[in-house]
Amino acid sequence: MNSIKIKSPATVANLVCGFDVLGMCLHEPNDEMEVKLITGKKITIHSTDGYALPSDPQLNTAGAPLIEILKTIDDDIGFEVCIKKNIKPGSGLGSSAASAAGVVVAANHLLGNRFTKNELVQFAMFGEKVASGVKHADNVAPGIFGGVTLIRCIFPLDIVSITPPPLFVTVVHPQIEVKTSDARQILRKEVLLKDAIKQWGNIAGLVAGLVKGDYDLIGRSLEDVIIEPVRSILIPGFDTIKKQCKEAGVLGGGISGSGPSLFMLSKDKVTAVAAENIMKDVYNQLGLDYHTYVTTINNEGCRVL
Amino acid sequence: MNSIKIKSPATVANLVCGFDVLGMCLHEPNDEMEVKLITGKKITIHSTDGYALPSDPQLNTAGAPLIEILKTIDDDIGFEVCIKKNIKPGSGLGSSAASAAGVVVAANHLLGNRFTKNELVQFAMFGEKVASGVKHADNVAPGIFGGVTLIRCIFPLDIVSITPPPLFVTVVHPQIEVKTSDARQILRKEVLLKDAIKQWGNIAGLVAGLVKGDYDLIGRSLEDVIIEPVRSILIPGFDTIKKQCKEAGVLGGGISGSGPSLFMLSKDKVTAVAAENIMKDVYNQLGLDYHTYVTTINNEGCRVL
Repeated sequence: MNSIKIKSPATVANLVCGFDVLGMCLHEPNDEMEVKLITGKKITIHSTDGYALPSDPQLNTAGAPLIEILKTIDDDIGFEVCIKKNIKPGSGLGSSAASAAGVVVAANHLLGNRFTKNELVQFAMFGEKVASGVKHADNVAPGIFGGVTLIRCIFPLDIVSITPPPLFVTVVHPQIEVKTSDARQILRKEVLLKDAIKQWGNIAGLVAGLVKGDYDLIGRSLEDVIIEPVRSILIPGFDTIKKQCKEAGVLGGGISGSGPSLFMLSKDKVTAVAAENIMKDVYNQLGLDYHTYVTTINNEGCRVL
Repeated sequence: MNSIKIKSPATVANLVCGFDVLGMCLHEPNDEMEVKLITGKKITIHSTDGYALPSDPQLNTAGAPLIEILKTIDDDIGFEVCIKKNIKPGSGLGSSAASAAGVVVAANHLLGNRFTKNELVQFAMFGEKVASGVKHADNVAPGIFGGVTLIRCIFPLDIVSITPPPLFVTVVHPQIEVKTSDARQILRKEVLLKDAIKQWGNIAGLVAGLVKGDYDLIGRSLEDVIIEPVRSILIPGFDTIKKQCKEAGVLGGGISGSGPSLFMLSKDKVTAVAAENIMKDVYNQLGLDYHTYVTTINNEGCRVL
């Protein structure tokens, strides 16, 4: 096998009360990638989408992880990568992570599965460093492991894989720009201990709810008293969408990654579609363009076609 | 049935990274109580131990919850309570909670189990208010539910019951006084966001480990970067005991409640006994009196005899 096609899914980092540690893999949208083994330690990257992403492998979120893979193996081989990005950069849906995760999973298949999923995450984090300057794992880990992942610790990397109960996810990506660096800069460096205690009560409840399949507990725990109150002001329509979606019966939801996309979790498809209609109405009224997705949690992660 | 005997167990609050939200029930030590139904809305409290605890029900941790129970029922009855405290007040092992939890479980049996466990916790919290001025639930909840409990939220009360895998618990109670009020006062009101993130990664890992029965994950997650570094300075021998117990193979451990008792969790009894010997050696060398217990997690809670 010298060539492989792969679908690399969108991911939702933070999951409301799990800032910097939780992430979730979606069935839609997906980047599509084709990766070919070539002779000679060389990496070339083409894109078939309209995004002007750097083709220099060192500056590309798919290229940097492959450079790291080539450093660890003796074989005189390289990779030719063709990417069609369907996950828009800057959407808050793990666009850079999809390139990084997809390419390492594809490369690993072509190399006869030499690496563990943990090692693949380590490689993919080099792509995140290219994208944001920081080697974080809360998007690449769910992209590679599927389901929900907890990054208990980043150095040394400790990933806990959590298989959630079936959940519908409604996503809206309003076409505005929220820079990750801005979204991070507006956060306070110190938080009140009493707020931190609330937050760790909630993340503990969320994890227990996900592992036990307790939907009510998941819903009660989807509360963020630290990050959301600050970041949500960057996202027009946030409060209205959240309030109306809760009234429509979603379990809960919030900002995807650092935004601007928002997501809501539901137990059934009817509620998930109702949430989508609310999101459409709000952004239609605000006169903002948007994309919506009604999807489910993807427990497989990147999928070789 | 007009009279009942009950064993009310010691509890460990906080569980390292779960400050103010996690608690765990032990098999040893236990308070012993006898509760009798009497005619007339009256409460009398006797103690058969040497502790000079107030006998006025309003000022007694067992009396205050019974007053609340009598307020909610129409029956012309009261309670006569006889307590033998084996859990020393001020030990950090939930002594006040044992009186409060034991008496409400006993009263509920005598009343034909009218109340849910959640309601019993609400009653018992009045006892904690008498003891410390604050209606907290992280000792009374595990005393009533057994196992490990998560207080996701205190108002409104949301208790998540977690059944852990079999675990041995080694406890040492050095005979020094650490006032809960002092232990609380030395905590900073603000914490670094990066430390809070580490802490919620750890509590999420601990809860996942407990629910999944993943001992290694439990061990890796038993880390507290916020409370322990401050409070442990009040407890002589803390660092030595923790370091040596880890070397002896315990999964982890820390301060029980606000101290001065320390606890260590182990997968097997041999390790738990090794931890006990380390604790004894350290306090013998320091010339401090102590009590030790090697016990297991009690999944039943208060037990009617």
